[in-house]
Amino acid sequence: MGVKGIRTAVKCDFDKPVDEQTGFHNRWHPDIPSVGTIANGEVVKIECFDWTGGQIGNNDSADDVRDVDLTKIHYLSGPFHIETAEPGDILVVEIQDVQPFQDQPWGFTGVFDKKNGGGFLDDLYPEPAKAIWDFEGIFCSSRHIPHVRFPGLIHPGILGNAPSAEVLAEWNRREGELIAANTLARDVAKPPEPMNAHAGSADGELKAKIAREGARTIPGRPEHGGNCDIKNLSRGSKVYLPVHVPGAKFSVGDLHFSEGDGEISFCGAIEMAGIITIKFSVLKDGMAQMGTQSPIYLPGPVEPHYGPSRYLTFEGFSVDEQGKQHYMDATVAYRQTCLRTIEYLRRYGYNDYQSYLLLSGAPVQGHIAGIVDIPNACTTLGLPMDIFDFDMRPEVKPEKLDMGSCAFTSDKK
Amino acid sequence: MGVKGIRTAVKCDFDKPVDEQTGFHNRWHPDIPSVGTIANGEVVKIECFDWTGGQIGNNDSADDVRDVDLTKIHYLSGPFHIETAEPGDILVVEIQDVQPFQDQPWGFTGVFDKKNGGGFLDDLYPEPAKAIWDFEGIFCSSRHIPHVRFPGLIHPGILGNAPSAEVLAEWNRREGELIAANTLARDVAKPPEPMNAHAGSADGELKAKIAREGARTIPGRPEHGGNCDIKNLSRGSKVYLPVHVPGAKFSVGDLHFSEGDGEISFCGAIEMAGIITIKFSVLKDGMAQMGTQSPIYLPGPVEPHYGPSRYLTFEGFSVDEQGKQHYMDATVAYRQTCLRTIEYLRRYGYNDYQSYLLLSGAPVQGHIAGIVDIPNACTTLGLPMDIFDFDMRPEVKPEKLDMGSCAFTSDKK
Amino acid sequence: MGVKGIRTAVKCDFDKPVDEQTGFHNRWHPDIPSVGTIANGEVVKIECFDWTGGQIGNNDSADDVRDVDLTKIHYLSGPFHIETAEPGDILVVEIQDVQPFQDQPWGFTGVFDKKNGGGFLDDLYPEPAKAIWDFEGIFCSSRHIPHVRFPGLIHPGILGNAPSAEVLAEWNRREGELIAANTLARDVAKPPEPMNAHAGSADGELKAKIAREGARTIPGRPEHGGNCDIKNLSRGSKVYLPVHVPGAKFSVGDLHFSEGDGEISFCGAIEMAGIITIKFSVLKDGMAQMGTQSPIYLPGPVEPHYGPSRYLTFEGFSVDEQGKQHYMDATVAYRQTCLRTIEYLRRYGYNDYQSYLLLSGAPVQGHIAGIVDIPNACTTLGLPMDIFDFDMRPEVKPEKLDMGSCAFTSDKK
Amino acid sequence: MGVKGIRTAVKCDFDKPVDEQTGFHNRWHPDIPSVGTIANGEVVKIECFDWTGGQIGNNDSADDVRDVDLTKIHYLSGPFHIETAEPGDILVVEIQDVQPFQDQPWGFTGVFDKKNGGGFLDDLYPEPAKAIWDFEGIFCSSRHIPHVRFPGLIHPGILGNAPSAEVLAEWNRREGELIAANTLARDVAKPPEPMNAHAGSADGELKAKIAREGARTIPGRPEHGGNCDIKNLSRGSKVYLPVHVPGAKFSVGDLHFSEGDGEISFCGAIEMAGIITIKFSVLKDGMAQMGTQSPIYLPGPVEPHYGPSRYLTFEGFSVDEQGKQHYMDATVAYRQTCLRTIEYLRRYGYNDYQSYLLLSGAPVQGHIAGIVDIPNACTTLGLPMDIFDFDMRPEVKPEKLDMGSCAFTSDKK
Repeated sequence: MGVKGIRTAVKCDFDKPVDEQTGFHNRWHPDIPSVGTIANGEVVKIECFDWTGGQIGNNDSADDVRDVDLTKIHYLSGPFHIETAEPGDILVVEIQDVQPFQDQPWGFTGVFDKKNGGGFLDDLYPEPAKAIWDFEGIFCSSRHIPHVRFPGLIHPGILGNAPSAEVLAEWNRREGELIAANTLARDVAKPPEPMNAHAGSADGELKAKIAREGARTIPGRPEHGGNCDIKNLSRGSKVYLPVHVPGAKFSVGDLHFSEGDGEISFCGAIEMAGIITIKFSVLKDGMAQMGTQSPIYLPGPVEPHYGPSRYLTFEGFSVDEQGKQHYMDATVAYRQTCLRTIEYLRRYGYNDYQSYLLLSGAPVQGHIAGIVDIPNACTTLGLPMDIFDFDMRPEVKPEKLDMGSCAFTSDKK
Repeated sequence: MGVKGIRTAVKCDFDKPVDEQTGFHNRWHPDIPSVGTIANGEVVKIECFDWTGGQIGNNDSADDVRDVDLTKIHYLSGPFHIETAEPGDILVVEIQDVQPFQDQPWGFTGVFDKKNGGGFLDDLYPEPAKAIWDFEGIFCSSRHIPHVRFPGLIHPGILGNAPSAEVLAEWNRREGELIAANTLARDVAKPPEPMNAHAGSADGELKAKIAREGARTIPGRPEHGGNCDIKNLSRGSKVYLPVHVPGAKFSVGDLHFSEGDGEISFCGAIEMAGIITIKFSVLKDGMAQMGTQSPIYLPGPVEPHYGPSRYLTFEGFSVDEQGKQHYMDATVAYRQTCLRTIEYLRRYGYNDYQSYLLLSGAPVQGHIAGIVDIPNACTTLGLPMDIFDFDMRPEVKPEKLDMGSCAFTSDKK
Repeated sequence: MGVKGIRTAVKCDFDKPVDEQTGFHNRWHPDIPSVGTIANGEVVKIECFDWTGGQIGNNDSADDVRDVDLTKIHYLSGPFHIETAEPGDILVVEIQDVQPFQDQPWGFTGVFDKKNGGGFLDDLYPEPAKAIWDFEGIFCSSRHIPHVRFPGLIHPGILGNAPSAEVLAEWNRREGELIAANTLARDVAKPPEPMNAHAGSADGELKAKIAREGARTIPGRPEHGGNCDIKNLSRGSKVYLPVHVPGAKFSVGDLHFSEGDGEISFCGAIEMAGIITIKFSVLKDGMAQMGTQSPIYLPGPVEPHYGPSRYLTFEGFSVDEQGKQHYMDATVAYRQTCLRTIEYLRRYGYNDYQSYLLLSGAPVQGHIAGIVDIPNACTTLGLPMDIFDFDMRPEVKPEKLDMGSCAFTSDKK
Repeated sequence: MGVKGIRTAVKCDFDKPVDEQTGFHNRWHPDIPSVGTIANGEVVKIECFDWTGGQIGNNDSADDVRDVDLTKIHYLSGPFHIETAEPGDILVVEIQDVQPFQDQPWGFTGVFDKKNGGGFLDDLYPEPAKAIWDFEGIFCSSRHIPHVRFPGLIHPGILGNAPSAEVLAEWNRREGELIAANTLARDVAKPPEPMNAHAGSADGELKAKIAREGARTIPGRPEHGGNCDIKNLSRGSKVYLPVHVPGAKFSVGDLHFSEGDGEISFCGAIEMAGIITIKFSVLKDGMAQMGTQSPIYLPGPVEPHYGPSRYLTFEGFSVDEQGKQHYMDATVAYRQTCLRTIEYLRRYGYNDYQSYLLLSGAPVQGHIAGIVDIPNACTTLGLPMDIFDFDMRPEVKPEKLDMGSCAFTSDKK
């Protein structure tokens, strides 16, 4: 009886610009042509670019982070036509494995410039910064954040089926309204943007239409998942995705070697190119049967586990750093929780940008603890002590270690 | 060598109104007299009333929930003077055990009337409802939510040290500003309220002052913790609490047999009276050494654990049920996540109020998944499948079971 | 609606000798009269003496261990008649909780004199020794083994249904043959022993018959479980026990606050008196349906968990300490594994008896790793590093700590 | 800054017989020439043949298992000279990853013929049998054992440093004595065997000497580990191995995709060829510092975890299937425990050989529960229910499923 490896449904060519490769796209639209067909029940490998399409280098400068072109990101692999999938079905996506490319055993975490992308804490940390992570099998470590080492909770940041025309129109409506009403001094959402739109193999008028109408890939969205950036949607997970168009038109990308809950520095996970192995199956009429319009998933049994008593846990409330009381705002509370953690890490000699990068990429646990005790939402952040090679318990006096620095831009050095 | 049990620092008298008992109080104020002294390093037991001070009965009507008097709640045990504790120190509180009273093996979860307390989902579920839980050793089950059974992740909802006068003034300032600016059709915070204030053994002018100035116990607050309602702050946990006044003046109460992340129905945990065993120690100059102003904790090693693949996980985004797009609002996202879970549970025959109560009391995991992908915050809710006695996996067709009902008010029957 | 506590099916009277109390017995025999009836589906509390019936004191001398009377041990609570249980059924025993008595918050671990009971390592460690453990809620620590503290994996050492006359005869046959063939210089099994037999409420000829025929309680046995000493058969476990006589005649006792796999020092667990809460139900015709003659169980979800990477793990093989090669002998291999662990603990200043006691009482994991690679069986022992308050990793140089000593006999001091 | 993959220290050539490839060997001897040098602190990949060197095919017949040549097995990769390692040091081996070859995504489990290798239960199951496992990313399943699927707890069966001449002489002495004293009707150990000895690049008299003296690779041994077959010595583990010769002369092989405790069918793990990634470092004078002569290890944090309550656990005692009582024999007890599990699995329609194969390859937990209660040793076997796609709980009536069969020999069909 013959045996062979699992077929690869789409491959990355690192010698050619990604926007010239038809197996990839960077907008959500029902009319992007399928890049191939996958049978119900089939297992395939899919190669993926890192989310910047190769704009970030393995070096010690954050200049590339500062200068990143955010219209040229999120090149997703796909869309794939899944046989038998029809609107109203659920596409069951089992993530059998995720691996970096053997000859690219590294990834990166970036703090974006407040003026070019920013991040969760950009009011306090507006400068670009970067950490490079080296992979050794299942582990990673960084020359930019010493004394830390942990196994990856490896996962795709983005997976989802194409929206129908109706779903797409709804996205554009509601996000357009938010943009129109915006009074903040920052972008609150990104409208369709023809510049640098990549519509896979579409060209001519079809490409123009997709570029004009296609939803940006930055946010996750309730109807299909998309860029949900859920760190536990890792190896062994089984995701139940609503189908909106015939054949589902499934896409995947934005692989992460690891991420902390929230992915707080925006380019916050440990970003990498790599290969995902997926088993696809179709649950007919699944949306009605399951009674839900949004993705549901079952995590796999192989997450790194440290034991609950190994998580040093910080509390944050919806009172901001100016002492202003916010009403039940979990976003404000989580920002405070992150700041409390960064303050604690100072005692070991980490600079704040190192800690900001670390919380983005390491598997920290961010929980909504209390959401009903007016006016304070309470969130927690659990930091796994076992990723550090020193004893982190509060009652143990820190010894001085050389913590070096993360990468900054060249004009900072 | 003699051996004796651990001493009980304060006892509940169930034959007398709690507001006549001097070992308890229901405001935060530095001048509430200490109820006793505890040595640095000592282990004591402390008895606690349930958070309504006995207003809720073990019966099949939610009338008592509807009629609850919210000025007569949160009778905390304490405050205790901890020897050697001074402002700037950290009080280390090790929770050695929490137990219900042997002769009161039950607790309750309530959905409050939208007009009297409300809850996280009160726009959709405005009616009062109740579930009674029976305890059998470490397990609980409810005649109001059949086919569910789980061990308690037992914990105090409230623990904290007294604020200093300065800290108290700051609380009243910032919460007062929020109240003053409120344009919502609901309370956003609770100002000091002399009615039914209980100041322990204080009387006369001291009592009047405490009643006038004392902060309400409803919210947790960053300076001392308080009503943080963190479900994992359970048996075996070690909490590091800032000290603001000489002797710390530690108080504890609002015991929960179990709770889901967020405690979403407000009276959402499985509320109970009981006994907490605590070991106290003082970390001198701990606030400066640890570099933090807020509580930090280490969970214990004995949380119930189900394995990651046993959590059916729902996703929610910051698009509300009217289709309105909110900007990076984790509170809106978590509300949607809860609604997705309630929708899913309908397939088994649970009514929505049962599910709302269940998510409040069972150990569901609420995570902040993505908080940077504009405009959508993404949160997740993990529902442990092993608490149900049937197979919950999406691909298994539900069989019809008799799910009965939770308790409603008498005029609803 | 009224609520009351759970009823207690049998109580310990600490003011009276246990052998004068009819709720207890220390032999297995079908004719021991039932001490009470429990309904199918009922939850009850059962009080239990410690396994020596109070012979060991909370003091700093091992004289009582040396002088223990081994004919006066294992006073089990029961037997209980379970309604509807018939031979061929399975009795489902759900352990809802196990607790020490509130006013006896301590237990003991003993190394028995090689000439009076002995233990797994008595060739090397023949002297009596003892450690007293103090309980603080779910945790224990010992003045005799400093720098160690852990939560109990609390469980009954003994539970089982009465044998039928046929099963009892088979026990006496096969163990009698072993005794008859014995050429070792030590007891290999214990035959029925009339002296100090306690047959519950039986008296006269019935008592004499039970004393003459009754099986000793020391070993576990495949037909009913008995003294299986399984550390994970703890709170939340559900045990499926074969029924051999009408009403099952269930008994329980020998409570342990904690134990290491193997219970190696014989009196090796942390022995205590206490209260077990059990729910009983009957699975009709269960033995045929389940296809098994021996107990099966499902552990509970609340075991202490440390994460796999927190277990320092020792390997042992079936080559004994004289360099003799044994053939596939897992018993020899496990003895070697224990010795390797004791050798390692010397670097911290523990004496060998302290370590021997510690491995007996702490939740160490003993695995059969390889049992097919002739001639060497391989076993492992996982020592949870988090029970120590210092950093145990091999690459961290030990600092000198005062480890004191366990208790020895008075003539040793 | 340049980046490259991790170097591969030795490669498998599948187009050439393994005994013609100098990077491999199948005896333990200090004089086998090193196949390469690895720096202290270096990370390398090492390719490994499956333990039969390719004798077993991916097909549906057990003829190859029946006819396997047991003198031509265990071709280990190495030995490697580790820079700076000297006798008395500890070689720290960190297993960064283990992977099957991408184009060989399958493995096998075999029950050997009782007359050619046998296994733990060969008195009852003397026939050859086989199961082929297909790998899909981190998961495996078998057409020969339907309705089972689980992630690999992937690991090397064999790793160790070369013995010194003195250690080798001791092995040959003690195993020779066992062989000389053997009265059983089966081999109890394997003496040095010149036939088919492979001594790497050695030839002439050196090769003859190694063939004459070299220890067989079948057993693990206390001085160096070797074929210890510890299932948890998996990805992320850190092993501390004694060094007996200059440069350590480290070898590794016999990769397993998964294994159950005991590896009971002898060829019991899921055997595969593949690639192991290891980081080597040297702990100078480690043997004296650690106070041990045998390997110690720390498991990694990424083992599959199911939660304790998901392990259906069987008990076994040292009474054999003929009713004979053995004295404290954990080997007999574990055999009984395996048989109890096989009996239980019959209710689902598995034949006994399927179950025997399953217990060998799936991650079952074999514990030594009680080893002191004369005359019965008690062991347990925990079967993870989540590897089955049906509900295994004893109280759930089994539905009939088509379980097919494992592979038998052609004359059996």
